[in-house]
Order: sequence, then C-alpha cells, then structure tokens
Amino acid sequence: MQVGKLVERWRGAGMKVGFVPTMGALHQGHLSLVSLALGEADRVIVSIFVNPSQFDRGEDLSSYPSNFDEDLKKLDEAGAHCVFFPSVDEIYPEGFSTSIHVSGLTDTLCGRFRSGHFDGVATVCAILLSIVRPDIALFGRKDAQQLAVIRRMVDDLRLGVEIHAGDIVREPDGLAMSSRNSCLDPEERKQASVINSGLSRAAELVLEGERDAERICSAVREVIDKASLATLQYLELVDPDSMKPLSKLTTPALLAVAVYFGHTRLIDNLILEP
Amino acid sequence: MQVGKLVERWRGAGMKVGFVPTMGALHQGHLSLVSLALGEADRVIVSIFVNPSQFDRGEDLSSYPSNFDEDLKKLDEAGAHCVFFPSVDEIYPEGFSTSIHVSGLTDTLCGRFRSGHFDGVATVCAILLSIVRPDIALFGRKDAQQLAVIRRMVDDLRLGVEIHAGDIVREPDGLAMSSRNSCLDPEERKQASVINSGLSRAAELVLEGERDAERICSAVREVIDKASLATLQYLELVDPDSMKPLSKLTTPALLAVAVYFGHTRLIDNLILEP
Repeated sequence: MQVGKLVERWRGAGMKVGFVPTMGALHQGHLSLVSLALGEADRVIVSIFVNPSQFDRGEDLSSYPSNFDEDLKKLDEAGAHCVFFPSVDEIYPEGFSTSIHVSGLTDTLCGRFRSGHFDGVATVCAILLSIVRPDIALFGRKDAQQLAVIRRMVDDLRLGVEIHAGDIVREPDGLAMSSRNSCLDPEERKQASVINSGLSRAAELVLEGERDAERICSAVREVIDKASLATLQYLELVDPDSMKPLSKLTTPALLAVAVYFGHTRLIDNLILEP
Repeated sequence: MQVGKLVERWRGAGMKVGFVPTMGALHQGHLSLVSLALGEADRVIVSIFVNPSQFDRGEDLSSYPSNFDEDLKKLDEAGAHCVFFPSVDEIYPEGFSTSIHVSGLTDTLCGRFRSGHFDGVATVCAILLSIVRPDIALFGRKDAQQLAVIRRMVDDLRLGVEIHAGDIVREPDGLAMSSRNSCLDPEERKQASVINSGLSRAAELVLEGERDAERICSAVREVIDKASLATLQYLELVDPDSMKPLSKLTTPALLAVAVYFGHTRLIDNLILEP
C-alpha cells in the first residue's frame, strides 16, 4: 500500500500521524524522535532516504554510512508503525526540475559552506511531507539551522504539518550522536568530545556573566584547538530564529559549531541564555 | 469561513472542487475557465490576487488593471461558488522567505525577459493550492510557459492536484483576451490584432508544407512589423513540454510571441502541427 493511502486511512479513522524523516544509519538521536512521535501521535512513520541533492559535489554522499537491516530492526524495536524507503527515482523522477530556496536563514553557519545544501533539504522535505501528509513531523535540534529552514518553509508554503523538535542526544563523553560519528577513527572519536567541552565552556562563561560573543567564541576555540585532529570550520553565535550573527548575548542565542576530524564533518550547538 | 475549511467540508461531502487562480480584471478567458471548472467539478473557487512577486522591478504592477466589483459580478453570473481574495500580507506574512524555482522550462520565452517572474508564479501557485486544496486547478493556454511551469512544479512537489488547461479566447479580430488589453489606446488596440494575424500566417505556411523554424518566424515577423506601434520582444518555436527552441517542425510545437504596444506587453501563442 502507498504510504499516502495508509496515512489517509489512519487519519480517516481519527488517528494522529507522526513522521520522522531520516537518512538512515540510525542512532539514539533518531530513535528519541520516534519515541517523541509515539508520545504525540497514534501512528509513526519513519522515512529512510539518503537525499543526493543535499550533498555538495565531492562531499560525503558516497561515504555516507548506511545500515538498512540494522535500521529496520531498531525501528521495529522502537515501535514505529511504518518505514518508508523510497528510491532516488521515486523522489526525483525523470525531468524533475523544481527546487525550493529559503533566503536569509541559509546565509550563515552551514549555509556558508555547503552550497545548495539547504535547497536540497527544503525540497526533499517538502516532497516527503507531501507524499506522507502527516499531522506532525519531527526533527532533531542538532541540525538547528535545518530545523529553522524547515519551519520557515512549512509556514511559508502552508504545508499544514506541525513541526516538533527533539533535543540533542549525546554519547557518555558528550559527543552529539550523529550517523557520521561512525566514520571517525578511534583517535578522532576520542578527541571529538572536545566539541561538547567547548560548548560547555561557553555555558560556564555565560553563567559567570560573560555576554560578549567574540570572547565567548574565543574561549570555545581555545578548548577545541586543544584537539590536534580538529579543524574548526565555523563557530558562530546567532539568533536562534533568524540565524543572524549576534555580537552580544542579550536574548537566548544559538552557539553553533562545525568541526572537521579528518574528512568527517561534525556539527553541534547549544542554546545560551543570558 | 476559511477557504480551506470550506473546501474540506465540500470534499468531505463527496464533492469535487475546482479552482481558478486569477489576478482579477476578469475577461472572457477567465470566465471560460470557470465554465470549464463547472463542467468538471461540483464546486468552483476563484481567487483574485495580484501577486507582487511575479512582477519585475519597474514592471507594470502599479498599472495592472483591477476592477474588483465588476469581477465579483462576473463571477456570480458565471456560477462560481466562492471568491477568495487574500491580501498581500495574508499570502506573504512578515518574515516570508521561501521561493520555488523550476529550472530548464524557464530559460526561454518570457523567462529570458522577466527575471524572477516564474519563481513568483510557481511560489504563489504552490501557496494558493496549499491554502485552497482543490481537486482540480485550471489555467489558460495563453500563458503556455506558465502552464508548463505549474504542471512541472505540481508534479515535482506532489501537490496532489490535477492541472487542466483552457483554450485561448479571442476577440472578434483575433486578439487574445488579456487583462492588459484594457491598457491599450484605441490605435494600439486596433493594431494589436497583427499578433494573431502573424500566428495565423505561420499556420498557413505549415499547411503549405513549411517546416523550417527560421522561415516560419521570418514570415510572422513580417506580418507583425507592419504594425507601426508594435515592438517584438520575442518570437520562438519551442517544444511545448520542455520549452526548448526547435529549428524544425517535426512534432507539434509551440509558436510563442511577446509584443509591446507602448508600455503594454502582450503575449500569444499557437500550437503548430506538422
């Protein structure tokens, strides 16, 4: 049965439908979204689709981790009711020509370094939401900019779905869960915990009264630079709605970071409250 | 009652809903779409919204004709069941940041001269279709490139609405009906019939066996150039699906033209069959 028909049937029976779009290689972060969805909806659909259009040329599409059988097992155990795993041709049939751009929000952070990435994300999410037609869709806060872009796009295009966010889930040493963590070698993996240490240092400074973005970022950079294998791509304090850079912490702000370990790019973030 | 709720109620009662999006200043072309919709659907909604984002800077937004009271009267007489006339703020609330681009199809014809026009058209149509959620939406064939762009976008984004097209409706002298015709002064209006004369000349040549795009276009240009007030913007023979230029007429092709009379830009087209 087509997923859209299934959802129509469920909704016709008065059930609320939650949807968790993923690129597979599932970890506890994804599963926490499934669990959140189960608390808010009667039926939960998870999609697994590694979307080519959100990877830059030369970026890590070909090396993006996948473990489909393991994913299905995890989703079954987590209590998901349906897994939707379309092919690339199903999402982008021959002649496909449409793209969605969200301006402003995509000028900073990852948008500065991953050309076309958020157009790919916005477009595939619009398609998946239109195919599935859930009541609620859930996204993780680790991809904070993605979350802002999707909220904006869903509002602007009146896609008629509520967007809910799940908190970042971390490994015992603080590293944010990510499918890409599996690409780290043992030494990289060990050092990667500095990202969270850096963010925690920022939170401490703010507690001590620091409000200057540049001084906060310097302190974080100092922590991350201690990891010999880390290469900082960006570290920015931005408004959590507009993603515009802030020089002072006067309202809750998003401190967002991207760090390379070898070829593996990791992102993380923290909301700082003055 | 919100238009979306009204449509939901109608569809819940098993009725098929047709939708005709317009920019107002209605003429017989629009009303023929309403009539077509009434033949294919149980309820017909017409929107009137002059969409700022599809006008270029300096283009004719401010001078675009409008006649709201007259439009309502015409739609009532035509048998439309609901008129939806959102404000600009309703369609584009504060912070609106999303745009939809259809590539390829928009490289030729009007797309070459009206920068951003089809992004504006695609975006507003996606929004209107998402607000109204009709079963069928109807567009005129005069705007052939617009029709192709909307079909592509609706397919690509799975908007779940059937797109139907209505034939061009012409004045007795052959001029294609257009809201912009009211901007012509009497002499311009008189001369404007050369556009259709030119297209008819092309059809004659094809009947006589001509298949060469350049020779067909030359003959049309010759006819249009006879009108002293006409300035040709483009004249192209293109594939009616891809909008790509053709050098030979081997399959049905779209001969499309844009002509200025003073500040007023008129478009027209004809399908030529070999």
